[in-house]
Amino acid sequence: MTLNQLGVVKRNIVRADNAAVEKLSKFGVATIHEAMGRVGLMKPYMRPIYKGAKICGTAVTILLQPGDNWMMHVAAEQLQPGDVAVAGCTTDNFDGFFGDLLATSFQARGAKGLIIDAGVRDIDELEKMGFPVFSRAIHAKGTIKATLGSVNIPVICAGALVNPGDVVIADTDGIVVVPAAIAQQVADAAEARESFEGEKRAKFEAGVLGLDMYKMREPLEKAGLKYID
Amino acid sequence: MTLNQLGVVKRNIVRADNAAVEKLSKFGVATIHEAMGRVGLMKPYMRPIYKGAKICGTAVTILLQPGDNWMMHVAAEQLQPGDVAVAGCTTDNFDGFFGDLLATSFQARGAKGLIIDAGVRDIDELEKMGFPVFSRAIHAKGTIKATLGSVNIPVICAGALVNPGDVVIADTDGIVVVPAAIAQQVADAAEARESFEGEKRAKFEAGVLGLDMYKMREPLEKAGLKYID
Amino acid sequence: MTLNQLGVVKRNIVRADNAAVEKLSKFGVATIHEAMGRVGLMKPYMRPIYKGAKICGTAVTILLQPGDNWMMHVAAEQLQPGDVAVAGCTTDNFDGFFGDLLATSFQARGAKGLIIDAGVRDIDELEKMGFPVFSRAIHAKGTIKATLGSVNIPVICAGALVNPGDVVIADTDGIVVVPAAIAQQVADAAEARESFEGEKRAKFEAGVLGLDMYKMREPLEKAGLKYID
Amino acid sequence: MTLNQLGVVKRNIVRADNAAVEKLSKFGVATIHEAMGRVGLMKPYMRPIYKGAKICGTAVTILLQPGDNWMMHVAAEQLQPGDVAVAGCTTDNFDGFFGDLLATSFQARGAKGLIIDAGVRDIDELEKMGFPVFSRAIHAKGTIKATLGSVNIPVICAGALVNPGDVVIADTDGIVVVPAAIAQQVADAAEARESFEGEKRAKFEAGVLGLDMYKMREPLEKAGLKYID
Amino acid sequence: MTLNQLGVVKRNIVRADNAAVEKLSKFGVATIHEAMGRVGLMKPYMRPIYKGAKICGTAVTILLQPGDNWMMHVAAEQLQPGDVAVAGCTTDNFDGFFGDLLATSFQARGAKGLIIDAGVRDIDELEKMGFPVFSRAIHAKGTIKATLGSVNIPVICAGALVNPGDVVIADTDGIVVVPAAIAQQVADAAEARESFEGEKRAKFEAGVLGLDMYKMREPLEKAGLKYID
Amino acid sequence: MTLNQLGVVKRNIVRADNAAVEKLSKFGVATIHEAMGRVGLMKPYMRPIYKGAKICGTAVTILLQPGDNWMMHVAAEQLQPGDVAVAGCTTDNFDGFFGDLLATSFQARGAKGLIIDAGVRDIDELEKMGFPVFSRAIHAKGTIKATLGSVNIPVICAGALVNPGDVVIADTDGIVVVPAAIAQQVADAAEARESFEGEKRAKFEAGVLGLDMYKMREPLEKAGLKYID
Repeated sequence: MTLNQLGVVKRNIVRADNAAVEKLSKFGVATIHEAMGRVGLMKPYMRPIYKGAKICGTAVTILLQPGDNWMMHVAAEQLQPGDVAVAGCTTDNFDGFFGDLLATSFQARGAKGLIIDAGVRDIDELEKMGFPVFSRAIHAKGTIKATLGSVNIPVICAGALVNPGDVVIADTDGIVVVPAAIAQQVADAAEARESFEGEKRAKFEAGVLGLDMYKMREPLEKAGLKYID
Repeated sequence: MTLNQLGVVKRNIVRADNAAVEKLSKFGVATIHEAMGRVGLMKPYMRPIYKGAKICGTAVTILLQPGDNWMMHVAAEQLQPGDVAVAGCTTDNFDGFFGDLLATSFQARGAKGLIIDAGVRDIDELEKMGFPVFSRAIHAKGTIKATLGSVNIPVICAGALVNPGDVVIADTDGIVVVPAAIAQQVADAAEARESFEGEKRAKFEAGVLGLDMYKMREPLEKAGLKYID
Repeated sequence: MTLNQLGVVKRNIVRADNAAVEKLSKFGVATIHEAMGRVGLMKPYMRPIYKGAKICGTAVTILLQPGDNWMMHVAAEQLQPGDVAVAGCTTDNFDGFFGDLLATSFQARGAKGLIIDAGVRDIDELEKMGFPVFSRAIHAKGTIKATLGSVNIPVICAGALVNPGDVVIADTDGIVVVPAAIAQQVADAAEARESFEGEKRAKFEAGVLGLDMYKMREPLEKAGLKYID
Repeated sequence: MTLNQLGVVKRNIVRADNAAVEKLSKFGVATIHEAMGRVGLMKPYMRPIYKGAKICGTAVTILLQPGDNWMMHVAAEQLQPGDVAVAGCTTDNFDGFFGDLLATSFQARGAKGLIIDAGVRDIDELEKMGFPVFSRAIHAKGTIKATLGSVNIPVICAGALVNPGDVVIADTDGIVVVPAAIAQQVADAAEARESFEGEKRAKFEAGVLGLDMYKMREPLEKAGLKYID
Repeated sequence: MTLNQLGVVKRNIVRADNAAVEKLSKFGVATIHEAMGRVGLMKPYMRPIYKGAKICGTAVTILLQPGDNWMMHVAAEQLQPGDVAVAGCTTDNFDGFFGDLLATSFQARGAKGLIIDAGVRDIDELEKMGFPVFSRAIHAKGTIKATLGSVNIPVICAGALVNPGDVVIADTDGIVVVPAAIAQQVADAAEARESFEGEKRAKFEAGVLGLDMYKMREPLEKAGLKYID
Repeated sequence: MTLNQLGVVKRNIVRADNAAVEKLSKFGVATIHEAMGRVGLMKPYMRPIYKGAKICGTAVTILLQPGDNWMMHVAAEQLQPGDVAVAGCTTDNFDGFFGDLLATSFQARGAKGLIIDAGVRDIDELEKMGFPVFSRAIHAKGTIKATLGSVNIPVICAGALVNPGDVVIADTDGIVVVPAAIAQQVADAAEARESFEGEKRAKFEAGVLGLDMYKMREPLEKAGLKYID
């Protein structure tokens, strides 16, 4: 199965290990992306549709056609508890592909949220339901059901490649994709990274400067930085 | 009176029927636009300036010149209780054409809010006053009063044509324009549409899939959808 | 020291007078920019990262390189109580140059907030800390520390020139820069301007029209405005 | 027939008078829009797909659905010699709705070009054919034929309302729509306007300043302009 | 080797078959993308830097860091005759990563051009050299050489996944990526598709309508299209 | 005189030395900006209105109000042979502030071109006249003459500060501002920089890699770059 293949639904996908997903859910997107070496982020135009929205789960991927949400219904059947629906589109499109009815269906399947590189609607209802969505746009514009896309193929969403089963974590800072094969390793690295944060914060609070904490004065001088009065 | 004619104020306009406006106010923008056949929406760059802003009323239209809010004052006199001011501009402009003083005047006239394809300011005060505004931008930049536009001519606002007297409904999902002549008919269609929602939601909650509820399996197969493992 | 000079940190800068800063902090951005003659605003793409964020203080300026936040640490040392960090970049860049650790450091130094023509992260933590930031983007993307920029040189931030020591005021309506030399004069003009607002608001509330209050009917007629029925 | 009505083709439209179209074809877009009082322009994101493209003709309007060019074929049948196809879309979409085959068909019908608020492709072939197109985007992305739009209803294209039969003029400076009913009057006004240009140009060439030619010195002084050394 | 891995250069990559590349070079981007089932396109913001630029070759992929073109030099060594350099960046960045000196080096290696999701400079010289480039921006802004990216890993460029060795075809209509494994099959499909074009064009020229040629009248009627006078 | 002061025209400005301007005119924008240490560029959204446009001269600065080109006429009188008009605006505005008549006047005064952070029109005529313009937009939209801006004050244009008398150089790669005080020094640095280019180009043509020419292999290895097969 290749990227962008149309008209295909893959039923059996290998989801990232539960324990790794659980562990990743404890860290923020910024921390996880640093733990991966500063890669894996979606573009910053993706924003939560309500304050406090957060998602961490395994991806069921969807490739949409412009103005057509047929595949959303096909995807619903493939969702399992703990999954996150992740939808890309074959072209830039801002229509409202998703609203409260589909959210009810997704939620009934145990889905933890939706990441969509397009528009959504029924924002107020989605917030009331507690169904988190991160999208490119909010748009009341409805869609049709006429053309095939695919479900559970590799999909590009907001500039990031998402394979079915990958872990996708979304919070106020953005969205990061962790390949299933390295989920545990990234979770461990995130933990290690975060363990130093408390100590650093305490020092900063006490007035220690990053210049001293990170020993930057010498490299800055070497780079030629000049202090003048 | 034609679209975009400058230097004209029309005093007597035919407003949509009160009962139709009242009925439309009960439905969301997404539902109303579907009831009209998926047309009539403004572009999704228009956003409420505060959470929870909602508007439903009859349009008093305003054609602005860039960086000039003179016509806002002319429009104030034409506003009647239940009206919504709807402002387009002869060119893209993001200045702050409207703030709390004008809002006080509009509110005193009984206006229900403002839809403006440009910028506004005094956002905090507008929220405190409970005067809902949907705009393209928030900008402190002030304007002058030097050039004529018009009031109550047909105006294009955020990609939608608005005739004076049309019903304009705005909520978190967007903004829809309902021509006065079909307001009652659209309200009825919206009602019919919404009456099915509860039943559908219940089914989705019970785990029924859209694939089955909408009988999509056969057309999907006909279209060539393939399930693989 | 000239605009955009790289590799320089100026230690002694002339900050605007305390009393002027204090007085300016009482007015909104829209009022202050009007008091200056409708100039001095940053572009409206700059937005607060949380609702209610407000800043008023004296600028410590930072010139960043793309994807590199080294100068943020250099700037921390130059911050004094009452200062606002104001960061421009040598090119358009949306990476997350600033997060909760740097904020802890800035806050420990007495800084009142950050204005940055680029991206930031750790938004939730920044809100919890009560450290206001106005930025162009929110992005989890981390940065490196490899190339010199400067601190306390004249910097262009979101289309406005900021000299170290200038007063920078930010609220929901936008951001305005008041040159240190005219801070008191602008504060006085803002006060004068605002003193008329209450009276005007009362008149508007009572139903007086701007057309009459500002005596616009005659100039409108002279300009050729026509009323039709 | 109303704006945005779907599923309708109007066969008999009233085209602007031939002589008026012919006369308008002699003037540039900037001149015509000034002659109309500075209104009627499409947004400046519309650009010619090749250097030197120019169009003047009567509009056959098309309302497209996103990613669907079915209506282009329906429109072809309605095109008469001297017509210009003008296409809007129910939502922002950048797909390539039009290429050399459709252009061959349109050209065979006598159409003078295409104005489309969306994408087109086969640019090189279109230039070779001498079939001028003004569009919002160039995109190889193909479209489907599944959903009804309309032909010859009022359509909004790039921020301008176009009624079937209106005169549409496009050149390097932009695109202007002249309502059929005032085509002759606008053509005359454009002619009058242009008749003064030669004289003015000669004066400017001779070194006369606009300040003197337009007698601006006094109003500038009145407005408070100060000359300093 | 995984997507976005940093600090890696893969020396041996499997390039698409020569014959397939040669055959693909005969078709336009629009035709090839249709032959693949309407997928594989980069976003339309990518444009040629000069009129007439065309590229067809096998991808050597580059992952850049913002404002840093170090990997361009690393990539040069991996380029073989017939290759196309394809560069993505870890974040949106518009700096000028590439100019005439690097082009001279790339050309000396036999490279056929550059596709870059960022900025380039020395446009006039590149045109004189006949070195085609498709980019997101033209920007004189220079870059540094400080941080590792990668060469010949899977890269996302302008919304499309590119694996080293894939065929990349660029012309005025856009850019399409053909996976190496299906290059021959896509070339054959493109050929088949194009073989029908001449016949269709002749019919269109003769005045046959698409409505009749594609037998659309019945499906349009079924869909509910109404003709009115 | 301060940045953005309104209602002022400065008559006597100190222009950069003739010899320095003459020397700078021999180098490209990319070279000059590198010679200044990679600063001084305007944003890349500024583009030439016709192919081959080039400008090098001393700045007469103009601060415009949105939709108002009054100051263009005031500026004409201040232009001397060798000057370049550089116009910023108090807010983002895309109207056509400048056309062939003003260009005739500017050309008669000896001006070498216009840089404007807004829109222009009469593009074809400007090309025929050989009057180069770099702008943000092309727009037929006309302007009024009602509000004061200023001439020859410091102005921000497309993200760069321009002081009257500064050297402004524009070519296909972009636009760079060289402060008058360092014009000679920058010209010399540009010359030095360019003197190495020929030698480098010859080496690249001969197949020498940048990796070797710039001795990058060791630092790359130190940074951790890994070659795999």
